[in-house]
Amino acid sequence: MIRFYNAKILTMDGDTEIRTGELWTDGAVIRYIGETPDELPAFEREIDLDGNLLMPSFKNAHTHSAMTFLRSFAEDVPLQTWLFEKVFPYEDRLTPEDVYAFDRLAILEYLASGTTAAFDMYFFPEATASAFDEAGMRLMFCGSINGTAKDVDRLNDQFQKFRHYSPLVGYRLGFHAEYTSDESLHRGVAALAQAEKEPVFTHISETRSEHEGCIERHGASPAQYFESVGLWEYGGGGFHGVWFDEADRAVFRRNGLWFVSCPCSNAKLASGIAPLKECAAAGVNLALGTDGAASNNTLDPFREMYLGTVLQKLRHNDAAALPAAELLKAATVGSARAMGLSDCDVLAPGKQADLIVIDLKAANLQPAHHIPESLVLSGDRMNVKLTMCAGKILYENGVYQNGIDAAAVRRDCAARIPRLTD
Amino acid sequence: MIRFYNAKILTMDGDTEIRTGELWTDGAVIRYIGETPDELPAFEREIDLDGNLLMPSFKNAHTHSAMTFLRSFAEDVPLQTWLFEKVFPYEDRLTPEDVYAFDRLAILEYLASGTTAAFDMYFFPEATASAFDEAGMRLMFCGSINGTAKDVDRLNDQFQKFRHYSPLVGYRLGFHAEYTSDESLHRGVAALAQAEKEPVFTHISETRSEHEGCIERHGASPAQYFESVGLWEYGGGGFHGVWFDEADRAVFRRNGLWFVSCPCSNAKLASGIAPLKECAAAGVNLALGTDGAASNNTLDPFREMYLGTVLQKLRHNDAAALPAAELLKAATVGSARAMGLSDCDVLAPGKQADLIVIDLKAANLQPAHHIPESLVLSGDRMNVKLTMCAGKILYENGVYQNGIDAAAVRRDCAARIPRLTD
Repeated sequence: MIRFYNAKILTMDGDTEIRTGELWTDGAVIRYIGETPDELPAFEREIDLDGNLLMPSFKNAHTHSAMTFLRSFAEDVPLQTWLFEKVFPYEDRLTPEDVYAFDRLAILEYLASGTTAAFDMYFFPEATASAFDEAGMRLMFCGSINGTAKDVDRLNDQFQKFRHYSPLVGYRLGFHAEYTSDESLHRGVAALAQAEKEPVFTHISETRSEHEGCIERHGASPAQYFESVGLWEYGGGGFHGVWFDEADRAVFRRNGLWFVSCPCSNAKLASGIAPLKECAAAGVNLALGTDGAASNNTLDPFREMYLGTVLQKLRHNDAAALPAAELLKAATVGSARAMGLSDCDVLAPGKQADLIVIDLKAANLQPAHHIPESLVLSGDRMNVKLTMCAGKILYENGVYQNGIDAAAVRRDCAARIPRLTD
Repeated sequence: MIRFYNAKILTMDGDTEIRTGELWTDGAVIRYIGETPDELPAFEREIDLDGNLLMPSFKNAHTHSAMTFLRSFAEDVPLQTWLFEKVFPYEDRLTPEDVYAFDRLAILEYLASGTTAAFDMYFFPEATASAFDEAGMRLMFCGSINGTAKDVDRLNDQFQKFRHYSPLVGYRLGFHAEYTSDESLHRGVAALAQAEKEPVFTHISETRSEHEGCIERHGASPAQYFESVGLWEYGGGGFHGVWFDEADRAVFRRNGLWFVSCPCSNAKLASGIAPLKECAAAGVNLALGTDGAASNNTLDPFREMYLGTVLQKLRHNDAAALPAAELLKAATVGSARAMGLSDCDVLAPGKQADLIVIDLKAANLQPAHHIPESLVLSGDRMNVKLTMCAGKILYENGVYQNGIDAAAVRRDCAARIPRLTD
């Protein structure tokens, strides 16, 4: 058992109130949250938080982790050039060993940013599962097939293989996007989802041309078209949703789907500003993701939350648009639930011990008038003092734990770069 | 003399090329940049950078440092409510001792963010001068008078008192804004500037109502009206400029004025997105500032650079709009020159040793494909390993130097909060 005491605690369990007291973990789970009792059990470690904040860790609800290999490789270029000249040709060179190496680089950044789970869409799932499992970080795969009905078998194979891969690694059904697959694939995935009673995820309405192209091809927007083929009978969600209209939001609302926004990627690639305020007003579930490092260029939940609120203020010409605390909820509770990690969402006894410690004494968080708002508008991953996943401390005071050798990861990645991007 | 060796060096002196070698400081200035010579002089300290980056420090070209006391005090409220109900009444309570205390809190954040100079507009200049001078950080005051011609005497008094206050503290002529003063003040400041051959700075076209109100009152936009009264015969500039049109940019171009953008503040208060791309295309000088912590809520040059480039991409629906490296130049070289610190702008022998060390090994900066772009799009103040101002190390590996007691600053500020914001 590990004891955190002298803590401020933001449980995110129903409200954003700040409590004081202590939290104990027991193996992978939270055992106790409350005042200091008269009698204490024996602990393997006791950590005095000295008034610092304990809160749920961040979960990254949309990412392509191994795309770290292209970080800052192609900047300030239009989307089509970026994708067809700078991303696809280089991705073709990737081996499973490369993906393992650059997943590990992403994991270093996730942990230093207070993120303990990634909803990852990419190639070579075995390599990715190994990288996350070894590091002690959670991974939820998202299927990413393209093509036609015959590709659905491959999705099902991966799903069956990885759905119960390990306590940390699981799998959700998914495919890349409407515009990279045909109706036979969409109906095939829908049938699989219905047979397995599983949710389905996909890129959706990220760019205007993709959104309008779907209307031309199928007579309806992606959200409305997918609903019509029965894709979401057991829930799921979509990534980006920049071009969602009122009817699309209604589809997401009535199917209980997750709207996973990636504000930084949408900004860098000039895809647009997603209608987060309208989604929230319509009662749509909100989550946040970073997308890959090539289009972001960082994997930072603080930046996503910040941009998530201020872009709504700009879009609506209203400083009151989409309160900052809504983004904190999306980045923690929402993102956990979006990827099906409902036992990792808030701090409460019996929940998984996926949590972080925030240095409230840092100058950028002082004075601490309103901590949830301050985390979103002023917070920074330099404020992350400790990251714990499933009860294991993986990062503490700038040093990686659990056998993670940051220098070895960096050297391994650097050695691969010349072959991948010459 | 201090020696930094095994360094990558981004001098920002004419280009953004990365060099390798070493840099020596001698007192407050840079003595040498280049390869390791055969014979080395004696040094008081030698710092092995192990391949990390040495670059010019950031300069904050528009701020109200002591507004840290209102950080996260009033969030998600419209601008007029924010200003008239949440800022002005509380500012009335400030004493010089309060301003000193909250300036010191801002200084902690500046130094941890790699910022070594602040162009500060606020009350009680003696208190602010003491706070910065004692810490070893540069301060350039900007005059902030309101009212009529009779207030110009007060500006001149401050100017004469602080223009040569210390090697670290100086003063530039300025006033709050067109809408808080009348024509007699503007003509009075213009006369003073011409007599002293000095540049003049002011808030300008921050909100649409302010911009359009000036056109109603004076028959011209603020930039055009100020030019007509002779304000800028010796240069200067304006803060914000969100609503600048082509004619305003032409005024700035032909007078060699500095356009000091504050993208984060403009976003949080929903003031709008400044036309930075158009300014750059017109040859207008660009600098960056944070504005005060109450409207930001942080004092982070990385976030300003990031927002500076991505908001242009969104505004123009073009991922190629305003390349990231332009923002790096604005935040370092541009901001130094805007506030008249032309000896602190780049790394070169004879220049002031105002510089920072960036941890290039951090996961978020790997792989290091294009370092200048990566600093803007992925960089983070957690990457700042060392901050030096005028040859003195003020912050190193998370610890404040030069006698700065962060815990004492925090306690002092916390004790003042109940009285200021009850």
